[in-house]
Amino acid sequence: MRAVVIHAPHDLRVEEFAAGEENIGPRDVRVRIAAGGICGSDLHYFNHGGFGTVRIKEPMVLGHEIAGKVVDVGSAVGAVTAGMRVAVNPSQPCNDCEYCHEGMRNQCVNMRFLGSAMRFPHVQGGFRQSLTVDAAQIVPIPDNMTMAEAAMAEPLSVCLHAARRAGSLMGKRVLVTGCGPIGALMVLVAAHAGAADIVVTDISDFPLSLAKRIGASRTINVATEPDGLKDYAAGKGTVHVLFEASGHQSALTGALAAIRPGGIIVQLGLGGDVTLPINTLVAKEIELRGTFRFDPEFALAVELMSKGLIDVKPLITQSLHFDQANEAFQTAGDRSKAMKVQLSFA
Amino acid sequence: MRAVVIHAPHDLRVEEFAAGEENIGPRDVRVRIAAGGICGSDLHYFNHGGFGTVRIKEPMVLGHEIAGKVVDVGSAVGAVTAGMRVAVNPSQPCNDCEYCHEGMRNQCVNMRFLGSAMRFPHVQGGFRQSLTVDAAQIVPIPDNMTMAEAAMAEPLSVCLHAARRAGSLMGKRVLVTGCGPIGALMVLVAAHAGAADIVVTDISDFPLSLAKRIGASRTINVATEPDGLKDYAAGKGTVHVLFEASGHQSALTGALAAIRPGGIIVQLGLGGDVTLPINTLVAKEIELRGTFRFDPEFALAVELMSKGLIDVKPLITQSLHFDQANEAFQTAGDRSKAMKVQLSFA
Amino acid sequence: MRAVVIHAPHDLRVEEFAAGEENIGPRDVRVRIAAGGICGSDLHYFNHGGFGTVRIKEPMVLGHEIAGKVVDVGSAVGAVTAGMRVAVNPSQPCNDCEYCHEGMRNQCVNMRFLGSAMRFPHVQGGFRQSLTVDAAQIVPIPDNMTMAEAAMAEPLSVCLHAARRAGSLMGKRVLVTGCGPIGALMVLVAAHAGAADIVVTDISDFPLSLAKRIGASRTINVATEPDGLKDYAAGKGTVHVLFEASGHQSALTGALAAIRPGGIIVQLGLGGDVTLPINTLVAKEIELRGTFRFDPEFALAVELMSKGLIDVKPLITQSLHFDQANEAFQTAGDRSKAMKVQLSFA
Amino acid sequence: MRAVVIHAPHDLRVEEFAAGEENIGPRDVRVRIAAGGICGSDLHYFNHGGFGTVRIKEPMVLGHEIAGKVVDVGSAVGAVTAGMRVAVNPSQPCNDCEYCHEGMRNQCVNMRFLGSAMRFPHVQGGFRQSLTVDAAQIVPIPDNMTMAEAAMAEPLSVCLHAARRAGSLMGKRVLVTGCGPIGALMVLVAAHAGAADIVVTDISDFPLSLAKRIGASRTINVATEPDGLKDYAAGKGTVHVLFEASGHQSALTGALAAIRPGGIIVQLGLGGDVTLPINTLVAKEIELRGTFRFDPEFALAVELMSKGLIDVKPLITQSLHFDQANEAFQTAGDRSKAMKVQLSFA
Repeated sequence: MRAVVIHAPHDLRVEEFAAGEENIGPRDVRVRIAAGGICGSDLHYFNHGGFGTVRIKEPMVLGHEIAGKVVDVGSAVGAVTAGMRVAVNPSQPCNDCEYCHEGMRNQCVNMRFLGSAMRFPHVQGGFRQSLTVDAAQIVPIPDNMTMAEAAMAEPLSVCLHAARRAGSLMGKRVLVTGCGPIGALMVLVAAHAGAADIVVTDISDFPLSLAKRIGASRTINVATEPDGLKDYAAGKGTVHVLFEASGHQSALTGALAAIRPGGIIVQLGLGGDVTLPINTLVAKEIELRGTFRFDPEFALAVELMSKGLIDVKPLITQSLHFDQANEAFQTAGDRSKAMKVQLSFA
Repeated sequence: MRAVVIHAPHDLRVEEFAAGEENIGPRDVRVRIAAGGICGSDLHYFNHGGFGTVRIKEPMVLGHEIAGKVVDVGSAVGAVTAGMRVAVNPSQPCNDCEYCHEGMRNQCVNMRFLGSAMRFPHVQGGFRQSLTVDAAQIVPIPDNMTMAEAAMAEPLSVCLHAARRAGSLMGKRVLVTGCGPIGALMVLVAAHAGAADIVVTDISDFPLSLAKRIGASRTINVATEPDGLKDYAAGKGTVHVLFEASGHQSALTGALAAIRPGGIIVQLGLGGDVTLPINTLVAKEIELRGTFRFDPEFALAVELMSKGLIDVKPLITQSLHFDQANEAFQTAGDRSKAMKVQLSFA
Repeated sequence: MRAVVIHAPHDLRVEEFAAGEENIGPRDVRVRIAAGGICGSDLHYFNHGGFGTVRIKEPMVLGHEIAGKVVDVGSAVGAVTAGMRVAVNPSQPCNDCEYCHEGMRNQCVNMRFLGSAMRFPHVQGGFRQSLTVDAAQIVPIPDNMTMAEAAMAEPLSVCLHAARRAGSLMGKRVLVTGCGPIGALMVLVAAHAGAADIVVTDISDFPLSLAKRIGASRTINVATEPDGLKDYAAGKGTVHVLFEASGHQSALTGALAAIRPGGIIVQLGLGGDVTLPINTLVAKEIELRGTFRFDPEFALAVELMSKGLIDVKPLITQSLHFDQANEAFQTAGDRSKAMKVQLSFA
Repeated sequence: MRAVVIHAPHDLRVEEFAAGEENIGPRDVRVRIAAGGICGSDLHYFNHGGFGTVRIKEPMVLGHEIAGKVVDVGSAVGAVTAGMRVAVNPSQPCNDCEYCHEGMRNQCVNMRFLGSAMRFPHVQGGFRQSLTVDAAQIVPIPDNMTMAEAAMAEPLSVCLHAARRAGSLMGKRVLVTGCGPIGALMVLVAAHAGAADIVVTDISDFPLSLAKRIGASRTINVATEPDGLKDYAAGKGTVHVLFEASGHQSALTGALAAIRPGGIIVQLGLGGDVTLPINTLVAKEIELRGTFRFDPEFALAVELMSKGLIDVKPLITQSLHFDQANEAFQTAGDRSKAMKVQLSFA
């Protein structure tokens, strides 16, 4: 089969890939991939060969936002049949470490996550024509959901998990800093969860215009309107929950004055070191909470999309055939016109 | 009356002070002060004239950890009689702002806090022979409690509030970084709250030896044993809750590897900017929570001491007559021999 | 002025009422009432003279779901002007008891609540031409909100508070038992808060048809389809949160099999004694939580309606002039055609 | 081997038992049992043949509070050696159902629990000379812990789980109704978790005298002092958390007036139907929470006992050789002299 393989920064090849998955295990399911979304971490591998201490040390198939059609089913798998259309959950926790036992499977110490260089040998990813996964990793989708939508289940899950980390958003003023695909999906999630007000900041107009379209109450380009958040800093601040999705220090520190005492910052964005005025955090009793991946939220993401409760389609701005993977990755990095870029594997 | 007044950094005077409180209001109570503890913020005023943007702009009586005897009672005050021995709560919230309405009285926008330069004119403090306060600010103490213990109610309240910010500590591994009076009181509170393990770090041996005496499972001098926390960094980390009481960046960042996924950092220590590796916080879903002052915890502090459930006496290392305030402040800054230094006003 | 006064069960009179409010206090506001909704407790006074131990012991003006126009403003009130259109919050907590201090103002021990016989003398209610309240009790409404909607702020607040008692509803399966005005408003609130599924039961078709219209995923008439909840009892049950709004034991016990382990029951409905199979509650670790009135949710109710995030209009099924109060009360008790019946005071 | 087998109510036999465990599996551990505690559910099988719908349908070895010495270790088990002294966790969740995935392993739909008739064939219990369990079920104990203490790990776990269901107890007033072994262990746990006040009620003096000895602030025999809880019913009530461990309706309803608004009832006691005045629960916003078994608390129970943080020894009032099982069960039912009765298997 053919796959999209990263060899080194800017060396992305569409090439033959031998998965060594000829024999399907009794609990496995083989999926013919139809659609795959390019994630920020894929872009990091593409542009920088990784992030932080996570680096590609061998060629690796990218991709973990994927959907496709079941083509083969292991002997011990019930309730799955060939032809089923499915979203594929890229995470495979062990179910038997202390974190799995405690219901924190996203923190599993033995986690296998598709297309990730965290372990060595790397876990090969899903940008390929066919993929064999554990049956627990697939979630069937209804007829009214496209493969493109199904491939959004993964990033949507990340945002649903982040929302849960914040507690109830109903009636709250929510601020989202950084309006890439994750920030934009946070807008959808916050709206669905009943936020009373959703303010979004970025330094680019295109994503902000999209945010406005999908439910933001107000958007602020902090490049051109650096004091835009001042309106929310009345008294001791008025924002209940900040979803920080940019990974930039200035976004985080620039928002502190707007956050209400007892307010919550959910940090989604990765970056390097961040310098915080700790006295502000102490005096206003702000909570800064990391959020990482997801677990039960994957099935929920599919459910909410299938019921029409969350509509991700406006965020899929481009779809290219996987033969054009290099062009697709270039496009995905262009914030003036791209939100989520997907590959099709038809 | 005479009072301990800060005029400028290192210009602390014991001098006549006219409080202008000749006429006691109907809801007021006049207290003859007996004991007063020197707090870290008092030391900041003494050494630096304040902290952050809070600066002394006029002479100010210091002191907010105080206890004494009721000498006069306003006409509308019930259940208080002259002669009562009381701890004095230095905070006076307005009861009618949005934060007071929500049960966050410690965040009251109109807070009057004894001996604080946050407002101007400053709220004069309690290191003086006599003080008139609202009747809601006093908590009677039983005969078996000394004035010195009663004057510990305030810093103990700070730590009880910090503990509440962490949620239940029962059965948890707790780390306390920075073993000044607040760190040491956190040890007492964590022990009382049922922590299974209490690890304490500092860079000075004297406070660590005290911590050991009052319930720490293990103490680590990170100046001489910089890798001491490594034992707790097994797997993804093993510490459930960190109470950061030093205000030093190195304490916070040095502890991150030891904190378990989902672990909580309660930040008590004030300092300047702190630089954090945000990816660690994100990937382990750590929560960093500010904590500030207290509210219902003041009465609870008195209750727990009076029932013998928390014994603060080992932490009161020196007591000097208020005439020797300058010497007392010098001593309070000497971490090789002082934990909590108090003034007596007998 | 004229008012709607209950004298005894079924003795409801529209008559002259001297409020004794000729002199407006400095913090008061006088409101000319425009609309008032009939609540279940009003019906209890009308039909039974009260509920439980709460009984009318003197003639009492009914009504606590009211809105109107400001006609006079006390000297110390800022930011309010004559002519303002306002929703009136019927609750006036003292701000200074232990519950007010803790942010549980709905539990205030000195609460004054309009049109309630809990205290004696009773607190006279709002079904009258003019009412003087504390300025803190009014919430201005925008031009796009009708007085009828504003008069729904109170019952909507009750439901917003109940939702908060349940924690986040996002992605949850919610069951509402009993579809009177409170149950129906719970449907609106659960939908707004992002519930993935909203099942509603009642014994009458009319309210269920309304529930369907405003967002219920499924409605079940348990009079004609007594086993309708069986579909949700698969495994150990699938319902995350039950809002019990009927006050009937059969509704509560009939739903237990459908509730998931760890599930939450928020009890809104009042009734008499309820007999529960305690072993089921224990073995499934179900939580049964009472919910009572509201506090900050009143302003939120106005905000959510004014932003179009919650639309209560379909629930206002009848509006009659207050001269026809008796007919209005009769209608309000007829579940085959009435959801919320309001009085107009134009 | 020989075992303690229940055949029918009051037909308890010490007899030969063929476990069919000759071949130890690779992940198994064989334990020679040393001590076993008689639980309330064992007594139910003995006296009534079961409880609720759970009934013995075939002879069943009783017992799930057990400890012993490892005698054989499966080939794939690491870190366990013959000779190890261990507490045996009677619960074996599947790790792969929805509840296991969510960290609610105590709610596992495929749970195998030693000595329980919930499934058929029944899961044979631990009152026998030798028992083979999954290696995940054993927790090594230190030399300073007796087998008798180790056999208390199970009921202590139940109480640690109940405490977690209540949230932090630090500084709270706790009421325990029903002072059998579970009620008494709740006193120990509440004391360890920092409760400020622990009130215990029962209808028998012997257990109350034990409760007093181990940390209760006050004990009330409600048979002779039926109004004893009135002191705690001041205002709207003063008890923060009630642990209901009697299973009797009168205990629950008799305590309601003493429970504070927002107070929590954790229901441990099993019984039949319980009739509650639902209006009280609603108006005071009380939360009634079921609690069932335990999961991570088992290892914690061993840890807390081994560190001397909880001392269960005063509660073990009798220990008899398992040949005298019938006498031991008779004694266990005599509340005038027995708290926890154990069997020894030496």
